[in-house]
Amino acid sequence: MTSTCKMWWLSIWVVFLCLPVSYGQVQQVDHQADASFIRKIYDQALTDCAAYSWLTHLSEDIGGRLAGSPQAAAAVSWAQQLMDTLGFDSVWLQPCMVPHWVRGEREQVRVAASVLGSFDLRALALGNSVGTGPEGVLAEVVEVFTLKAVDSLGAALKDKIVFYNRPMDPTRINTFEAYGAAVDQRVFGASRAARYGAKAVVVRSLTTRIDDIPHTGTLRYEEGVPAIPALAISTRDAELLHELLQKGPVQLYVRADAHMLPPVRSWNVIGEIRGSTHPDQIILVGGHLDSWDVGGGAHDDGAGCVHALAVIELLRKLNYRPKRTIRCVLFMNEENGMAGARTYWAVSDSLEEYHMAAIESDRGGFTPRGFTVDALPELLDQKFEAVMDWAPLLEPYGLHLEKGGSGADIGGLRTQGALLFGFKPDPQRYFDFHHAETDRIQAVNKRELELGAAAITALVYLLDKYGLPY
Amino acid sequence: MTSTCKMWWLSIWVVFLCLPVSYGQVQQVDHQADASFIRKIYDQALTDCAAYSWLTHLSEDIGGRLAGSPQAAAAVSWAQQLMDTLGFDSVWLQPCMVPHWVRGEREQVRVAASVLGSFDLRALALGNSVGTGPEGVLAEVVEVFTLKAVDSLGAALKDKIVFYNRPMDPTRINTFEAYGAAVDQRVFGASRAARYGAKAVVVRSLTTRIDDIPHTGTLRYEEGVPAIPALAISTRDAELLHELLQKGPVQLYVRADAHMLPPVRSWNVIGEIRGSTHPDQIILVGGHLDSWDVGGGAHDDGAGCVHALAVIELLRKLNYRPKRTIRCVLFMNEENGMAGARTYWAVSDSLEEYHMAAIESDRGGFTPRGFTVDALPELLDQKFEAVMDWAPLLEPYGLHLEKGGSGADIGGLRTQGALLFGFKPDPQRYFDFHHAETDRIQAVNKRELELGAAAITALVYLLDKYGLPY
Repeated sequence: MTSTCKMWWLSIWVVFLCLPVSYGQVQQVDHQADASFIRKIYDQALTDCAAYSWLTHLSEDIGGRLAGSPQAAAAVSWAQQLMDTLGFDSVWLQPCMVPHWVRGEREQVRVAASVLGSFDLRALALGNSVGTGPEGVLAEVVEVFTLKAVDSLGAALKDKIVFYNRPMDPTRINTFEAYGAAVDQRVFGASRAARYGAKAVVVRSLTTRIDDIPHTGTLRYEEGVPAIPALAISTRDAELLHELLQKGPVQLYVRADAHMLPPVRSWNVIGEIRGSTHPDQIILVGGHLDSWDVGGGAHDDGAGCVHALAVIELLRKLNYRPKRTIRCVLFMNEENGMAGARTYWAVSDSLEEYHMAAIESDRGGFTPRGFTVDALPELLDQKFEAVMDWAPLLEPYGLHLEKGGSGADIGGLRTQGALLFGFKPDPQRYFDFHHAETDRIQAVNKRELELGAAAITALVYLLDKYGLPY
Repeated sequence: MTSTCKMWWLSIWVVFLCLPVSYGQVQQVDHQADASFIRKIYDQALTDCAAYSWLTHLSEDIGGRLAGSPQAAAAVSWAQQLMDTLGFDSVWLQPCMVPHWVRGEREQVRVAASVLGSFDLRALALGNSVGTGPEGVLAEVVEVFTLKAVDSLGAALKDKIVFYNRPMDPTRINTFEAYGAAVDQRVFGASRAARYGAKAVVVRSLTTRIDDIPHTGTLRYEEGVPAIPALAISTRDAELLHELLQKGPVQLYVRADAHMLPPVRSWNVIGEIRGSTHPDQIILVGGHLDSWDVGGGAHDDGAGCVHALAVIELLRKLNYRPKRTIRCVLFMNEENGMAGARTYWAVSDSLEEYHMAAIESDRGGFTPRGFTVDALPELLDQKFEAVMDWAPLLEPYGLHLEKGGSGADIGGLRTQGALLFGFKPDPQRYFDFHHAETDRIQAVNKRELELGAAAITALVYLLDKYGLPY
């Protein structure tokens, strides 16, 4: 063979080797055109994007917005009106019945008797907790670090206040792993202690910081076990209480006015741009509109909501007309019941919809690091391989794709065959603010928020342009 | 050949292929032992590390500490006393003469006449700027966006105030690149305008934010050209001034009391642990102790100083005895003269020292992303290849190595054959605070700062254990 001929055969061989990489894709990845459009998305996001001003309004003017609250209703109205200006083909409210928990009067956790005398600890009732009645609960404290320890102590916990004090492990580089390894105390701690006759529980706040700020969050009561009050105390107070307990018995007085009112109607807020060529293939992008009542729900999950809205803003400003249906969903009641998400899944299944992909942003508005990718086990590998073709387009923006859990509100779409994405920003600061008074706009950096909007928009663009193998 | 025999030959071949990777290394990388020790470094940093409390003292109790100021002297004393407690084999002060610039009375930039009337802009004199005299300077403003434009306008700038208004490009993902592309206006703008008879310059603050906070920073006067006053105004005021200039001529009144006093003696603060087996191979870790007079110099470069100190703290707490000499250097006068660094280089060269490696942290205390690596061009490839052997050990902590500029204070060690590292944290928030009143401890996240200390300590450990090819 001549040298030219050899080169020709080599080329054929190289092309053949490359073929499997894009097998199953609708079309070959056009790296140059895509790189150029993604660059435009970032330019737009970093120079002219409303995300931060939307978030300022949502977290500061509307404020904390637990499902069922007037603020949640205001957030629904605001989001619907805003969507009406963003050029969606249709915008609608999807009704759902949500629990209506209220904190009531300010709660109190007081060291009633100890070697240091008596004084208040900084506390917040946990979401869904029952109250103590106006007279409160006075009892001796028993400290535990695990649910298992509660089972071991058993009858010894009768008429006691159980104090869960296992810290979030600060040495985990991914703070979400540390949260996942500690959150059982908050979610299941009350009922576990109630099994053995405890009168109330106090839980160390879930944050890696040692400070004076209590962090709330939801609990779940077990059926058939008495519902007892549960409150979080700040990590510094948890350390103090631990110290006190080394020195002798501690009596704690706990009072909470928290109570559940009858369920009320609320709504998911939804807007969509209908796809020009594959309208039946839905790409969902969303966050949850509700937040805790304390703070402004800026990172959790105002950031996710304005990320989702900004995807539409950015694509419209760049005159991008999607081939597939892009649906923006702001879910209601993620924090203490998931009523919005469950309704959305049920309605979608009943309409026999196909969500090709769903992206949730619910880990804050920090500098983007990439996306976690999830699907039914039998579909994951092939779909993950397909999106990995795009990795070189995302890498210049510090975005990496990895397998892993996505987001609570989109989990139920897995059964439709959807590829689920969790937006993954830098996790170091999230639990400083999570479910606390400090989750306000001041904790959000405008540029970091905008980079998140751009990252999610870039992914939506690629999903829309190339689709995914079934 | 039998199949087993084939495998044997294949193994030999694979080993042979792998050989060049570790060629020149003192020993093979022991991934398991190293992974375990690096894990210990992170555990220590995230549970028991003084970096944040040191930084609180340096930035808040001592505060802004420009070279020559009483605060800089206090910082030198504090750092020396602190080093004396950290278990260094020796601690010393290295004298150097530093410029002594003072801001004097609060500066003023006032729109004296415009379509909107007269009002003050938020301003800060640039470092090293001369003052205006008590009567100030009143002149018409000419807006420019480049130094070249100044040359083009030439004589038209006589008796004018030149307003440099080229923004930092917000679309650059790496904000340091955006800074590098705009900083010429601040550093060289005054003298360039003075060449043509301008009376003063006003410079748009170097930040991607649009806000009310002016950012100072150094300028350099050209010899043989009159030194004229130079002040930064906030980006929002720069935008306003630009708008005003679209509507008609604007008179600006500028007053600054800034002036240079005679040089004074100051010091680099240095501590070292002498290496047990290669004491002549120095691994330097450092930052600069001086900062601007406004703000607390928390990110710039208090963070770098406490990073360097924490390397020693962490290694001592882990009972690590280095084989090579680890030297912690807190440089003086990086911000407006580099006197400390120049002295350090000259003394080191005269002592015929060999800095095997030098690491500077001077990009803030944010979540670590990795290190840039630099050296003499003829040495870079081989040394970079050697450190890339460690990449799998750093990757789990989100740390990546790439070729690129290191740090101002260590640049002069390149000629000793040193491999230079620049600590590279997330760059998105740095220029929000850089050289401004807002660079205070509140802008620093404790956990992010500690992750930085751990990252640098991990690199020092690997450098110490394995050394580098000459």
